Amino acid sequence: MAKVFRLALIQMAVGANKAENLQKAAQLIKTATKEGANIVALPECFNSPYGTSYFAEYAEKIPGPSSTTLAEAAKENSVFLVGGSFPEEDGGKYYNTCTVYDPEGNMIAKHRKIHLFDIDVPGKIKFQESDVLSPGNVFTSFATPFCKVGVGICYDIRFQEMAQIYNKQGCSLLLYPGAFNMTTGPAHWELLTRARAVDNQVYVASIAPARDEKGSYVAWGHSTAVNPWGEVIAKAEADETIVYADIDLERMEEVRQNIPLRNQKRTDLYEVTEK
Amino acid sequence: MAKVFRLALIQMAVGANKAENLQKAAQLIKTATKEGANIVALPECFNSPYGTSYFAEYAEKIPGPSSTTLAEAAKENSVFLVGGSFPEEDGGKYYNTCTVYDPEGNMIAKHRKIHLFDIDVPGKIKFQESDVLSPGNVFTSFATPFCKVGVGICYDIRFQEMAQIYNKQGCSLLLYPGAFNMTTGPAHWELLTRARAVDNQVYVASIAPARDEKGSYVAWGHSTAVNPWGEVIAKAEADETIVYADIDLERMEEVRQNIPLRNQKRTDLYEVTEK
Repeated sequence: MAKVFRLALIQMAVGANKAENLQKAAQLIKTATKEGANIVALPECFNSPYGTSYFAEYAEKIPGPSSTTLAEAAKENSVFLVGGSFPEEDGGKYYNTCTVYDPEGNMIAKHRKIHLFDIDVPGKIKFQESDVLSPGNVFTSFATPFCKVGVGICYDIRFQEMAQIYNKQGCSLLLYPGAFNMTTGPAHWELLTRARAVDNQVYVASIAPARDEKGSYVAWGHSTAVNPWGEVIAKAEADETIVYADIDLERMEEVRQNIPLRNQKRTDLYEVTEK
Repeated sequence: MAKVFRLALIQMAVGANKAENLQKAAQLIKTATKEGANIVALPECFNSPYGTSYFAEYAEKIPGPSSTTLAEAAKENSVFLVGGSFPEEDGGKYYNTCTVYDPEGNMIAKHRKIHLFDIDVPGKIKFQESDVLSPGNVFTSFATPFCKVGVGICYDIRFQEMAQIYNKQGCSLLLYPGAFNMTTGPAHWELLTRARAVDNQVYVASIAPARDEKGSYVAWGHSTAVNPWGEVIAKAEADETIVYADIDLERMEEVRQNIPLRNQKRTDLYEVTEK
């Protein structure tokens, strides 16, 4: 297995026109691949504005136009592609869904957001994803020639148990396409990304859309990658950009030897279990 | 129950003379109480230098001089006292032990460090507590009129499962007397304190000794208290000082309502269990 590989976080500016969003995503994936990325990740809701009023309008079946665009982009650029998320319709229900493709364009994983974003900070931010969306019920990881990768979407990152289970499953990289806002973003986005990395001694990246000050939902941006020591190794500002992180699995092993948490867990006293 | 109470973090400069350390601790506890503290916390290893070569020399049985001093200080000042830690000898074994006293001077809890500090960051810091110490095997919490409090010692904070279990047990405040060093301190001390607070939506404080640049083990200092939103509400620099944090349980409830993580856990998919 290769010990170092390149991850691209595409902090894309998402507009109201789905076709334009898809076209732009394909362009940015090509750019990232030309820069040497082995895994490319898009943000949450990359094909539509983020908001409960948009989910049904932009939702698609899988396969559908968005998944087909992603599959073709993965194949054309011969790259692993974590397709952020888009609203999925299946059996009359809607999901916030991340699809993942291998360099041949095969869809190798599909993650439906497990923890729906229902919060209410009075005067700041109120959001009720569950008004429209149904939750996923399955953890999602996929294999690459580099390492195993675990996937969560946005609010999923707040639930440390999910990262703990991906850790137990042997994932070395966790990817969270997400769109934190101007309240939770400055308070928690980097903190949570760093905490998941240090606690589990894995690489973690959170991938946001670019900030649109005029949007109905203003995303924080600041796509971030963190190494297993907790250091931020790539970080975007608020605007559209691609940032790159070199994922060094030898560095991960070094951290795990320096601070051997994984052998020091008191599994005689506690356990995190997947049901 | 009172909704706001005052926590004092005593960042004490610890020397080689045990009697002087005990005397100073008693003085600082008195000072903190006069400033209105309802719970006073000392740092890890407050009666001895921190190091495997010191543990046996400074170790005591419980009860013994150190626990007696603490009990008297709690009673004299009528305050809850979390007595940092000191090396305990019991049955020929040594432990890193935190004793806790109520305002009547009764010892109401005793925590033996569960996760021993065995790390090796080449060229930076190597420490092997397990060369001398034995680990505790029991989680430790105690009741106060304000809230239930969970206790860990230093390296215990790295194991998120312990905080998760204290959270499930209903603790609203977690206290970690600890002595991170000049490598792990800047990298992880505040991050871990904040992460435990945000993930569990509780107050968390870590209490360090003052930095002694000439000591064989140079502590990071920076005793820190964090609220359930993840904000640092009290933080010391490196020198001897007492910092105070007002613990507002209504603020905690507010955060839990704003972001209702506790009702959103997918206990159908995962669980953290105490054995």
